[in-house]
Amino acid sequence: MSTDYKFEGWCGLDPKAAEGNMVWQEYEPKPFSEDDVDIQISHCGICGSDIHSLRSGWGETPYPCVVGHEIVGKAVRVGKNVKHIKEGSRVGVGAQASSCLKPDCEACADGEENHCPNTVGTYCSKYPDGSKSYGGYANYNRTPSHFVLNIPESISSADAAPMLCGGITVYSPLKREGCGPGKKVGIVGLGGLGHFGVLFAKALGAEKVVVISRTSGKKADAEKMGADGFIATDEDKDWASTNANSLDLIVSTVSSPKLPLMGYLTLLRRKGVFIQVGAPEDALPQFNAFALIAKGCKIGGSLIGPPSEIQEMLELAAERKIKPWIQERPLDDANQAVVDMEDGKARYRYVLVNQKVAGKQ
Amino acid sequence: MSTDYKFEGWCGLDPKAAEGNMVWQEYEPKPFSEDDVDIQISHCGICGSDIHSLRSGWGETPYPCVVGHEIVGKAVRVGKNVKHIKEGSRVGVGAQASSCLKPDCEACADGEENHCPNTVGTYCSKYPDGSKSYGGYANYNRTPSHFVLNIPESISSADAAPMLCGGITVYSPLKREGCGPGKKVGIVGLGGLGHFGVLFAKALGAEKVVVISRTSGKKADAEKMGADGFIATDEDKDWASTNANSLDLIVSTVSSPKLPLMGYLTLLRRKGVFIQVGAPEDALPQFNAFALIAKGCKIGGSLIGPPSEIQEMLELAAERKIKPWIQERPLDDANQAVVDMEDGKARYRYVLVNQKVAGKQ
Repeated sequence: MSTDYKFEGWCGLDPKAAEGNMVWQEYEPKPFSEDDVDIQISHCGICGSDIHSLRSGWGETPYPCVVGHEIVGKAVRVGKNVKHIKEGSRVGVGAQASSCLKPDCEACADGEENHCPNTVGTYCSKYPDGSKSYGGYANYNRTPSHFVLNIPESISSADAAPMLCGGITVYSPLKREGCGPGKKVGIVGLGGLGHFGVLFAKALGAEKVVVISRTSGKKADAEKMGADGFIATDEDKDWASTNANSLDLIVSTVSSPKLPLMGYLTLLRRKGVFIQVGAPEDALPQFNAFALIAKGCKIGGSLIGPPSEIQEMLELAAERKIKPWIQERPLDDANQAVVDMEDGKARYRYVLVNQKVAGKQ
Repeated sequence: MSTDYKFEGWCGLDPKAAEGNMVWQEYEPKPFSEDDVDIQISHCGICGSDIHSLRSGWGETPYPCVVGHEIVGKAVRVGKNVKHIKEGSRVGVGAQASSCLKPDCEACADGEENHCPNTVGTYCSKYPDGSKSYGGYANYNRTPSHFVLNIPESISSADAAPMLCGGITVYSPLKREGCGPGKKVGIVGLGGLGHFGVLFAKALGAEKVVVISRTSGKKADAEKMGADGFIATDEDKDWASTNANSLDLIVSTVSSPKLPLMGYLTLLRRKGVFIQVGAPEDALPQFNAFALIAKGCKIGGSLIGPPSEIQEMLELAAERKIKPWIQERPLDDANQAVVDMEDGKARYRYVLVNQKVAGKQ
C-alpha cells in the first residue's frame, strides 16, 4: 500500500505558538519503514507538555513542530513486520514513539522502554535516521509499531486519548508504589493528570484517596470522581499538622518552586513515598533531609510508562469502566484550545476531535 | 540487688561543651524498673551526633547532658522482667533507649521501633516518666532492656561499640535497599559512618563499592577497606559525567547545603536510590525533579535501625570478621577526643575506653 495522503498538522513555528499561533500546514514525516504504522488521527488529547514544548519551555524546540502525544485513530498503513496491529484497527500512541529495543539496553530488556537512553518522543524529537518526530495535532501520524497500542473496544476514542499520556503518567507510579487495598493515597493537583490519579487510585482499590489542592474550588468535582478527602492548602494554615502521618503515597502532578514540599512530606506516614510526575521547568523547593530520615520516607520521580503498562492500564480502564472527565474541542480550533488549556480552563482534559473522520472510521 | 554504684559521667553544661568543656560529675539516671538493665561501661564510641547535641546543633539541648550512644559494657543489674540479658553478660546499647512498644503503635508492631513516634534517644531525651536519658561517656548506663543487645563473643568491645550507631546507620539502608550481588554501591564520605558503609557493602556482597569524597586523601584507606573505586569530586571536574549511570544505590553520610546533589543523582542508574543518613543541621541543596523523573530515581532517608536489625548486623560482623577502623582514647581524655573528632582527625572512629574496667570485666 502506498501513501495516498499528505501529512498536515498544526505547526508551531516559534515560541509564540503557545499563545495560539500554530499554523496548519504540511510537514514531512519520517520515511516509512516496515516496522511502522500510519494512523489516521480522530482524537488527540492536549497535554501540558504540548504547551511547554510549543514555547520552548524545556530547552529549544526544533521548530517547525507538531505537538500532541495522546493520539487515537485508525491504522491505515501497517508495515510488513508488524504483528500486533491490523490495518483498520483503532489504535493509540502515547508520549513515546521509539526506543532502541536493543537486547543490550538494560531499560528495553527490562521492559522499561520509557527509560531507554535512546528514547524518541512522539514529537520534537529525532529518530536514529535523523528525521523528526511529529505529534497528533494533525490528520495523520507515523510511529514505530512497538509504541502503537490497540484500544479496547469498550473505551471511546475520546476517553482513551488522554489516558495515553495523562493517564499512564499517574497510573504507573500508583501501580509500582503499591496503591491498593489498605493504602492511603494523596494526589497533589486536580488537573488532567490529577483527576486520573483519583480515578486510577480508586480503581486500584486504595483505602482512601485524598486530593491536595490550593483552594477548595474543585472539591465537589473531586468527590464526584471518588475522592474520600480534600485538603486546601491555601485555606487551612494548619493543613500539614492536621493531616500529618496520614498518607502512604503521594503523587504530585504539579510543580512550582513555591510548592509546600515540607508540608507534603509531613503528610506521609512512616516509609511513605512522594512521587513527582509531569515535568517541571523549575527546581523543587529546598527541604531538610530530616523530613526523609525521621520517617524513612522517599521522594521519587516517574516518567510516563512503557507500552506494556499502558496496555495494562487500558485493560483496567475497560474492566472498571473508568470514565475520564474530558471536553471535546474541534481540531480546527486547536489554537484556542491551547490558550484555554494554558488558562487552566480544562475540566479536566481537552481532547481535539478531527470531525472529518471521528465516528466515520 | 541494690545499686552500690553512683552514676558519673562527662556532663555538658552548655554549648561550649562541644569545644572540650565537659565536666566529670554525678548525675541522676532514670528510676530503675524491672524492665531495665544497668551497664558498667567499658567502651563508648564518639559519634557526630554527640557533638551536634553538645553544642545544641539540633535544637536546644537539655543541659546537663551526658552524650554517647555507642555503649558496650557488662550488665551489672538486670530487671526481673528481662529475659534476654543475663547479669554479667557483655552487652551494648545504640542510639535508641526506648520506644512505646504498644501493640497499637504501627512502627513498634512492625519491628521498626526506630520510627516509633514516642522513641527516646539514649541521651538528651526524656522517658515517659519525665526522667532524662543519659549516654555513655560515663561509668554506668541504665537503659530499658528491649534496646540492650548481647554482643557476639568474637567481636571485641572496642570494635562492637561504633557499630551500635555508626554501623547500623549505614547497614540498615544498605540491607533494605538490596545491597548484594550484582549491585553497584556508592558511599559518600569516608568517615565513621562511611567506612562502615564500605565494610558492610562488601560483606553484603555488592558487586562494586565506590567511595565518593571531596579529595583523594583517603583513597588508599578506602582501597584497604575493600572499595573498588574512588571519586574525588573536588579534583575531577568531569566526575559526574564520567561516572554517570554507574551506581544502583548511594548512601550519603555527609550533608551540607553545598554538596553536589545533582551530580550524585547523575551517578545513579535507572531506578537508583540515594539515601541520606546521619542528620544534617542544614537543608539539602535544591535540585530539579527532572533528575528523579528521567531515570525513575528516588531520594530517601534512613534513621539508625531497630534492635532486631542491630543484632542481625552484629551476627554478620561476627561471621564475616568485620574489623572496623577505630582508635581507642582513654575515657579520662574525652574532652580532647571530642575536639579531635570535630577536627576530623578520627581514622575512622574514636572509641572511649574506661581503662578502670576494660579487660577486667
